Amino acid sequence: MAKYVVSRVKTGIPGFDDLIEGGFPQGTTVLVTGPTGTGKTTFAVQFVYKGAELYDEPGVIVTLEERAQDLRREMLSFGWDLKKYEEQGKIAIIDGVSSVVGLPSEERFALEEGLNVEGFLRYVYRVVKSINAKRLVIDSIPSIAIRLKEEQNIREVLLRLNTILLEMGITSILTTESEDPKGGKISKYGVEEFVARGVILLDLVEKDVELKRYLLIRKMRETKHSMKKYPFEITENGIVVYPSGEIY
Amino acid sequence: MAKYVVSRVKTGIPGFDDLIEGGFPQGTTVLVTGPTGTGKTTFAVQFVYKGAELYDEPGVIVTLEERAQDLRREMLSFGWDLKKYEEQGKIAIIDGVSSVVGLPSEERFALEEGLNVEGFLRYVYRVVKSINAKRLVIDSIPSIAIRLKEEQNIREVLLRLNTILLEMGITSILTTESEDPKGGKISKYGVEEFVARGVILLDLVEKDVELKRYLLIRKMRETKHSMKKYPFEITENGIVVYPSGEIY
Amino acid sequence: MAKYVVSRVKTGIPGFDDLIEGGFPQGTTVLVTGPTGTGKTTFAVQFVYKGAELYDEPGVIVTLEERAQDLRREMLSFGWDLKKYEEQGKIAIIDGVSSVVGLPSEERFALEEGLNVEGFLRYVYRVVKSINAKRLVIDSIPSIAIRLKEEQNIREVLLRLNTILLEMGITSILTTESEDPKGGKISKYGVEEFVARGVILLDLVEKDVELKRYLLIRKMRETKHSMKKYPFEITENGIVVYPSGEIY
Amino acid sequence: MAKYVVSRVKTGIPGFDDLIEGGFPQGTTVLVTGPTGTGKTTFAVQFVYKGAELYDEPGVIVTLEERAQDLRREMLSFGWDLKKYEEQGKIAIIDGVSSVVGLPSEERFALEEGLNVEGFLRYVYRVVKSINAKRLVIDSIPSIAIRLKEEQNIREVLLRLNTILLEMGITSILTTESEDPKGGKISKYGVEEFVARGVILLDLVEKDVELKRYLLIRKMRETKHSMKKYPFEITENGIVVYPSGEIY
Amino acid sequence: MAKYVVSRVKTGIPGFDDLIEGGFPQGTTVLVTGPTGTGKTTFAVQFVYKGAELYDEPGVIVTLEERAQDLRREMLSFGWDLKKYEEQGKIAIIDGVSSVVGLPSEERFALEEGLNVEGFLRYVYRVVKSINAKRLVIDSIPSIAIRLKEEQNIREVLLRLNTILLEMGITSILTTESEDPKGGKISKYGVEEFVARGVILLDLVEKDVELKRYLLIRKMRETKHSMKKYPFEITENGIVVYPSGEIY
Amino acid sequence: MAKYVVSRVKTGIPGFDDLIEGGFPQGTTVLVTGPTGTGKTTFAVQFVYKGAELYDEPGVIVTLEERAQDLRREMLSFGWDLKKYEEQGKIAIIDGVSSVVGLPSEERFALEEGLNVEGFLRYVYRVVKSINAKRLVIDSIPSIAIRLKEEQNIREVLLRLNTILLEMGITSILTTESEDPKGGKISKYGVEEFVARGVILLDLVEKDVELKRYLLIRKMRETKHSMKKYPFEITENGIVVYPSGEIY
Repeated sequence: MAKYVVSRVKTGIPGFDDLIEGGFPQGTTVLVTGPTGTGKTTFAVQFVYKGAELYDEPGVIVTLEERAQDLRREMLSFGWDLKKYEEQGKIAIIDGVSSVVGLPSEERFALEEGLNVEGFLRYVYRVVKSINAKRLVIDSIPSIAIRLKEEQNIREVLLRLNTILLEMGITSILTTESEDPKGGKISKYGVEEFVARGVILLDLVEKDVELKRYLLIRKMRETKHSMKKYPFEITENGIVVYPSGEIY
Repeated sequence: MAKYVVSRVKTGIPGFDDLIEGGFPQGTTVLVTGPTGTGKTTFAVQFVYKGAELYDEPGVIVTLEERAQDLRREMLSFGWDLKKYEEQGKIAIIDGVSSVVGLPSEERFALEEGLNVEGFLRYVYRVVKSINAKRLVIDSIPSIAIRLKEEQNIREVLLRLNTILLEMGITSILTTESEDPKGGKISKYGVEEFVARGVILLDLVEKDVELKRYLLIRKMRETKHSMKKYPFEITENGIVVYPSGEIY
Repeated sequence: MAKYVVSRVKTGIPGFDDLIEGGFPQGTTVLVTGPTGTGKTTFAVQFVYKGAELYDEPGVIVTLEERAQDLRREMLSFGWDLKKYEEQGKIAIIDGVSSVVGLPSEERFALEEGLNVEGFLRYVYRVVKSINAKRLVIDSIPSIAIRLKEEQNIREVLLRLNTILLEMGITSILTTESEDPKGGKISKYGVEEFVARGVILLDLVEKDVELKRYLLIRKMRETKHSMKKYPFEITENGIVVYPSGEIY
Repeated sequence: MAKYVVSRVKTGIPGFDDLIEGGFPQGTTVLVTGPTGTGKTTFAVQFVYKGAELYDEPGVIVTLEERAQDLRREMLSFGWDLKKYEEQGKIAIIDGVSSVVGLPSEERFALEEGLNVEGFLRYVYRVVKSINAKRLVIDSIPSIAIRLKEEQNIREVLLRLNTILLEMGITSILTTESEDPKGGKISKYGVEEFVARGVILLDLVEKDVELKRYLLIRKMRETKHSMKKYPFEITENGIVVYPSGEIY
Repeated sequence: MAKYVVSRVKTGIPGFDDLIEGGFPQGTTVLVTGPTGTGKTTFAVQFVYKGAELYDEPGVIVTLEERAQDLRREMLSFGWDLKKYEEQGKIAIIDGVSSVVGLPSEERFALEEGLNVEGFLRYVYRVVKSINAKRLVIDSIPSIAIRLKEEQNIREVLLRLNTILLEMGITSILTTESEDPKGGKISKYGVEEFVARGVILLDLVEKDVELKRYLLIRKMRETKHSMKKYPFEITENGIVVYPSGEIY
Repeated sequence: MAKYVVSRVKTGIPGFDDLIEGGFPQGTTVLVTGPTGTGKTTFAVQFVYKGAELYDEPGVIVTLEERAQDLRREMLSFGWDLKKYEEQGKIAIIDGVSSVVGLPSEERFALEEGLNVEGFLRYVYRVVKSINAKRLVIDSIPSIAIRLKEEQNIREVLLRLNTILLEMGITSILTTESEDPKGGKISKYGVEEFVARGVILLDLVEKDVELKRYLLIRKMRETKHSMKKYPFEITENGIVVYPSGEIY
């Protein structure tokens, strides 16, 4: 039998792709988790932005923690002009905040209030198709969980979300929160990591009264990956991983 | 593309602004968290007081933990005469305690009892506009949570609060409580830090049977910031941070 | 502007006042917390007894953990004759136990059963006025919480209690319990310390298979205070703090 | 004023009375707590048995964990013949188990099933009076809590129990359970220690893969006591404390 | 008075009886607890099997975790032929699993489904009498708890079970589970150890990346016992304890 | 009596069978547990795949975490062509995901939605019989628990599942999740390990900022097994255990 070869999607995060055989397996779903202030949103947006900028792959960002306009402004500090690629039809941002907080939205793509999970997936699917997106970011899982009006089981919702993303063939990043990864709890609900096919932890470690950032690939199916803790920084151009650096 | 420049708001806390590229990003919302007795209220009031005194920026303080009159008296011990700037229309204090405890209030700005979150935000908005405030303090989030009569989700309320403050374009400090920051839990409800755009931890560390104060910037969007633990003191003139000091 | 001067109330606890600029700020409310057997009741009663004996300031003790007569007997072991000052109108003890346990009380001041927080505060206010008290002790907060028949929020009750005591202008000590202060939880409900304006922790530390007592001032508004752990003892004359002692 | 002298009740436990100024304060209530197998029942029964044998003081044992007949048999292994003193009217055992488990009891004193706390206290009071008891043991508090059919608050029940025992003037031992005293939780419900006037912890510490017994007096009102951890053993004659021994 | 002598029941576990004055006190109830895979079932069955084989004492095994036939097969790996002694009327196995899982049982003794605790005890009593059993094993307490259809308090059920076993005069082993004995929690519900008269912990300790088995007698009434941690092994002939071995 | 010999089922995992006397006891049920990303699914599928490839034993895989087609694709990265053996009738995959997420399935074997535990077992039984399977994998227990529509007790369901698998005589692997095995909690619900007859833990340990994989056999009835922690790797050919390697 000829050796099976997995197609790889370059992340656009300097230093990172070398750790995972060249990129994410195409069509996979990856969980990016960590405590507050570790760069999860930046990691996720960089994946979509660089996809458009460097690899000509359209991408969709579902922003559930802040409005599209606030996200755009923030990303400018990395020199990332999301608007430019939105106008070129290479990036689409779905605003999931405005309607919830009762503010009018002038966004092209915006979620209605009181959406259930099916409606949410259908809307995302439609936007993905409209720009023929290859990359998707959903920021974040806890924000989805909050919006679910029915009494749905978070594990079942994630299983459904994950499977439908696989069916769509899109390479996706979902973000979630972890208060205390060192204590063994690497996600908000304790189930996200078991449903996702890849898990990347962004965390902090204290060294000489200073917190240092590190990244750990806890899981990546179809991929031979290192389980080392790699230092990374959030520079003025976004996240840079140092595969040969030492965190201690 | 020309480099995007973030406007900075000087905090008026000696030694602090150097740690965050000159000040808070204008229009951002910052969470100040920590255990009891670490100086959260002092930090927040100093931000508004120095705004009026040094930078001619009007500010609003929403006090939900103690009456306006008690806050004024306390701040006198730092030599801060809030009354003076209130009379000049540079500071406004919204008393959120008197009505709740059933005492009459002679305050100009006071919250009614049984206010819901919309009413609360509307009232704050009105006071902010009336003095054209550029700075806002809400002390504290747990006190808002307690006042919510309806069964509202604290995460959703914070998301709404945060977004509306961003929409108002005002630079804000929200305070919350953290019983045990070293155990990874840096806020009361475990969600405040994920919704806020900046997180500053005020904490204590024991050294030779004495507790020492330190400050840690856990998160500050649009800002390149240090993640070091800096010593600070509560002097007779308020908080002073020592960027070159060592806490151990 | 002339420097604002805070009036100080001497506690009558040898060695303690030097740690807080001469005494409690007049009119403040202080929380005394700690595990069982650390001397919280002794600390609180000493404050009232010495007020009457040394400073000619009348004081009220609300005893919710044991009957007035049991408290009187116990304090005799320190040589403190509460009865004497009660007869002189310098001390009043409000018995909050007899009615609850269904025993008749011959006390002059006794709480009725089934009192709500308003009734409780009104009764305390009346007794305070009747002897023109300057000092007040409520022993303890968990006992108040238990007595609340309605479904009241403990944080709101404490906020009300604290504000009304401030309004009365009386200097007060409230006691509460802490099972495990070293684990970061310094009070029974996790909210008492945030509402009070001063927090004193009485705790134990093990040294050579012996538990040693120490005291830590965690918070004291309007006061520059040390954050060191000071050794103290419960002598046959009451509590004595050793400001220059070492606990390790 | 003449120095107040506290009457002392000798416990009959060799080596122990020296640690507490000669014995328990007369009329006090002491909590004996600890993990399983540390000797709580033995400590409590020894107090009553030696009272009858050495000091001619009648005593009552309320046994809620095992039947009177099982307790008698067990205590024979220490050479203690409870039956002998029961026949002399110096000891009375109230069987609180037989009725609960649905077995007939031939005991002279036995609790009925479904007793509320008032009925329980009334019955105990009657038996105490019938032999003019000076000492009382209730083994154990969790067993009382289980029997309470109404939704009573354990803290309020203990406050009532404690106060009525004080009113009766009887010197009492109550036992309770502590899973993990080293973790700061020294009782089953976390409230027993705050209501009782004395607290004695019986615990174990590991030394060279062997568990060693030690005793710690955590609290004893009206008494100047050591806070050292003292080794003790359960010998064939009952508990012996070694005031000059070392546990490590 | 002549010294009271406790009759001893030899366990048939090599090396163990020497640690407890020759055997269990006759008629007592012993709890065997520990994490998974520590040999609780083996310990309990060995007690009954060796009773029949070496001491001619009939015994009953109530198996609630696996069917009688599965237990028999497993025990063959230790060379124990339970069937042989069942045919001789020296061992009876009560199958408590088949009916619950809806499989037909050809067992002579089998529990019906939906049994309450009284029915359970009555059935066990009948089987014990039918072979005049001196030894009894119930494996396990959590399985009883699960089967209780009514809302019964586990502590009360255990008190009843324990007392009735004492009344029957039979020497019994009950097994229970302990996830984390080192953390102080030595049983599933935190109450089993307080109700039982003996407690034996089977646990594991890590030494050089290998887990080693040890046994600790935490409690044994009427018995002077060591509190040392003894190594043991599960050999091809069952459990062997090494009283002079070292676990570290 | 002739020595009882247990039949062994070779796992097909290099280096593993030597640790357990040559293989799993035939007909037993083994729990494979561990945190995310430790290789539980790979371990389980390898057991069935190698059974078909090397030992000519048919096997069934129940996949409840991902669709059959996703599982097939993933396993190709180890060079395992499940499809080939499915066509030969040596492997059957039951898709338990498609119906739940509302996607159509073209699988030959697929679970309907809303299945109760009896229906689930009946379906599995039918597929096992249809290919005369000797090996079975159910991936995973938490996914079963989620699907149970009725309020069934997880312990009772596992007891039933385990007993029926034993009755079927099939050698089975069940997977479950463990967030923090080092803290003593080696399974999701804290009961799986007590019901299963074998427990294998796949876990990670940090060494020089790198996580290393190890395997520990916590329990294996009818088997003399080591309790050492063995290093293993997930190679491009699947899992390989190193019986003579060192993890530290």
